[in-house]
Amino acid sequence: MPFKFKPDHEAASPLYMQLAQKLAQAIREGLFLADEALPSERVLSEQLEISRVTARKAIDRLVEQGMIVRKRGSGNYIAPKLEQPLSRLTSFSEELQQRGFRPSSRWLARGFTPAAPDEQLSLGLSTGGRVARLERLRLADTVVMAYEVSVLPEAVLPDPQAVEASLYEHLQTLGGAPVRALQHIRAINADAKLAGLLEVPVGQAVLFITRVGYLESGHAVELTHSYCRSDYYDFVAEMRRED
Amino acid sequence: MPFKFKPDHEAASPLYMQLAQKLAQAIREGLFLADEALPSERVLSEQLEISRVTARKAIDRLVEQGMIVRKRGSGNYIAPKLEQPLSRLTSFSEELQQRGFRPSSRWLARGFTPAAPDEQLSLGLSTGGRVARLERLRLADTVVMAYEVSVLPEAVLPDPQAVEASLYEHLQTLGGAPVRALQHIRAINADAKLAGLLEVPVGQAVLFITRVGYLESGHAVELTHSYCRSDYYDFVAEMRRED
Repeated sequence: MPFKFKPDHEAASPLYMQLAQKLAQAIREGLFLADEALPSERVLSEQLEISRVTARKAIDRLVEQGMIVRKRGSGNYIAPKLEQPLSRLTSFSEELQQRGFRPSSRWLARGFTPAAPDEQLSLGLSTGGRVARLERLRLADTVVMAYEVSVLPEAVLPDPQAVEASLYEHLQTLGGAPVRALQHIRAINADAKLAGLLEVPVGQAVLFITRVGYLESGHAVELTHSYCRSDYYDFVAEMRRED
Repeated sequence: MPFKFKPDHEAASPLYMQLAQKLAQAIREGLFLADEALPSERVLSEQLEISRVTARKAIDRLVEQGMIVRKRGSGNYIAPKLEQPLSRLTSFSEELQQRGFRPSSRWLARGFTPAAPDEQLSLGLSTGGRVARLERLRLADTVVMAYEVSVLPEAVLPDPQAVEASLYEHLQTLGGAPVRALQHIRAINADAKLAGLLEVPVGQAVLFITRVGYLESGHAVELTHSYCRSDYYDFVAEMRRED
């Protein structure tokens, strides 16, 4: 146990807060890895000479902040965190790799379906058109981060089964991936189906993101609905004043 | 009742879906105003010669999409919608005015408090510093859109009581408002206090946005936590591929 976690009994701020801040900083600095277990509350309290209550309150705070996940019966783990910039169009796979996680997808469906009315509208399809539909869970290491449904015109993605980890990489090999996208961001309560997929309680608030991706030509080629666990995703936007 | 809402019994898509789309388009085109009542389900069904069930399902869909709010006992109203770009730093007041709404604030608190640890950290304050704290509800016309808590160093905002509708305008008169901000966007479930303030059910998913605002000098002068009703806010981000 690094001595540096030891809270200072003389300092003004509460012990649990000091410990939470020190642990948070260590996590941010990469001292622990995603999905790695933290020292238990018992170990923390013994080695840092603080009460169990203080240790628990510090952990509670990190759980609230989404830095730590409690797993029933097996302790507290570092949560994977995907800091996703909202101005740069990068793929899930790229972002995760940059942060040292191993991205993967668990396919739920890859095939063709008739285009729903909102899909026709977003992709500018005529009535009766078919779309390629990709439905998958996105994982970081072993943790489910998001459930994603992407819909593309049949002409853009003639063989959905051929898509592997990265849709954008696949589109690139076919001649062009989106270079621009518009995203709408909302919060929704997970219904039973979604909660099951994301492994969260029913009713849990999740981020619901609708993205329309455009080619250089301005042609809309991708409509993606993403349901992201808010405890793992951290969407970041930089705003500037325009004069 | 404009004839144009009448669904086409010969068309392939269900009547309620046609009606929902036609009403949605009319709302987007500004045919109805925010906070105006829609024709009731009874009126819709009689005048458009459709069943009450069809009319109700169309309205249900628009409620799901956040375009319409049901008010108990008095019918269905057009929901105010704030489309907030995530790359441009604009104030709530400006955005709403541009969309034809009347922005206002209901103050809950304006004063000084000791800086909490996360506030010290975000604003680079030394321990024991005081901050000006502004706590308010943000309204569009008569509708509560968000609950907002802004914290600024005492030196930046020496007289919090003097802030009126727009914090940024006030800071401008004092010599400088943020020109750049970093926002983090998450989804949370409303607890009892927040649900009461936002007039939503307890547990409702809301957008939780943390903003740190910076002066041209790079100095952080504002930490704002906003809790936004997701049915009224529509955060939009445009992303571009970087090569």
